[in-house]
Amino acid sequence: MAVSVEVPENISAFLDSATPDEWLDVATERLPEMLLDHANCELKAASTALGFLYRYPERSVLAQRMSRLAREELRHFEQVRSIMDDMKIPFERLTASRYAGGLRDAARRDEPYKLLDLLLIGALIEARSCERFARIAPRLPEKLGKFYGGLLASEARHFEHYIAFAKSESGVTDAKIEQRLQELKKVEAALISDPDPIFRFHSGPPL
Amino acid sequence: MAVSVEVPENISAFLDSATPDEWLDVATERLPEMLLDHANCELKAASTALGFLYRYPERSVLAQRMSRLAREELRHFEQVRSIMDDMKIPFERLTASRYAGGLRDAARRDEPYKLLDLLLIGALIEARSCERFARIAPRLPEKLGKFYGGLLASEARHFEHYIAFAKSESGVTDAKIEQRLQELKKVEAALISDPDPIFRFHSGPPL
Repeated sequence: MAVSVEVPENISAFLDSATPDEWLDVATERLPEMLLDHANCELKAASTALGFLYRYPERSVLAQRMSRLAREELRHFEQVRSIMDDMKIPFERLTASRYAGGLRDAARRDEPYKLLDLLLIGALIEARSCERFARIAPRLPEKLGKFYGGLLASEARHFEHYIAFAKSESGVTDAKIEQRLQELKKVEAALISDPDPIFRFHSGPPL
Repeated sequence: MAVSVEVPENISAFLDSATPDEWLDVATERLPEMLLDHANCELKAASTALGFLYRYPERSVLAQRMSRLAREELRHFEQVRSIMDDMKIPFERLTASRYAGGLRDAARRDEPYKLLDLLLIGALIEARSCERFARIAPRLPEKLGKFYGGLLASEARHFEHYIAFAKSESGVTDAKIEQRLQELKKVEAALISDPDPIFRFHSGPPL
């Protein structure tokens, strides 16, 4: 039985575009690759969170939250790997999709804009991941669909933590944060909507 | 009241040398620096565990264990940072001690010896950390001493996990593993026993 999951309103309101149906069609056909790349994404999300700890170690509240976030992403990494083992999906190294790199390239280099942009990009990646969990879950075998529904419940507020930190840690005015967020949302939406030569968890529709 | 903690026998038997009393004398006098560096060490231990995930992602059992280990080290990082906040110890960037770098320099470059050496070095660092937790705990204010006793209980078997992986993952014979372990134990013992120009959680006695 298909799992009934919907994209939470705060997430669909936050993102500039919805995942194209063409991506969902491919994802259901290429489940092993999706899981493989999703495991990578959880690991990378943990590393990204730790990156804030290394770059801004003097910020105690940020350090505590990012460390907890990294732990949660690692737990999800372990869960996806377990599912892969159960499904006898052999491990393969996958090249990265254009998505995270494309967003990182948009980050400014000078502080405090670098910190601000990295936090806003973190928010966008978290929100997009949740949107995909919700969209793909009803199309998956029941057990896997329930797992994705659970991830959504667990990660649905991560993007808001990133936004809260953008406001509390960057020292940039709310108006300028909002303006920058709108710019980055457009970059993110294009990466999700433009035809993409490779299939990954965060890729666009197939070329 | 001083906390009563002893170095577990499996740990003292594993290490070639005990922490010199001179290090303990300095550590009790330089508590803020010790805590600062200890927080760093927990973070680096998490990163080291994640390094195995990135380098050997195809090894499922190793990946699961190292991910769990990283989560545990991160939880300890958060605890040390909380204690620092409670004690109003301001954050400072500290240079690394010679210890971890000195051990890493001893690792061979070619597989499977690289994996083997990294795992054996991981075992030594974990065992040494526990030995220091046990030795310093009775000299600390009660609350802090109890915390270190708790860390010891939590981490006392980590080094055995590393040794078990050296045996199950490297494909090197037990005799050769044992021989290499003896060599690395000597390197480690020298880093702990030779006079050290800087004080850190894993430094030698003061120069």
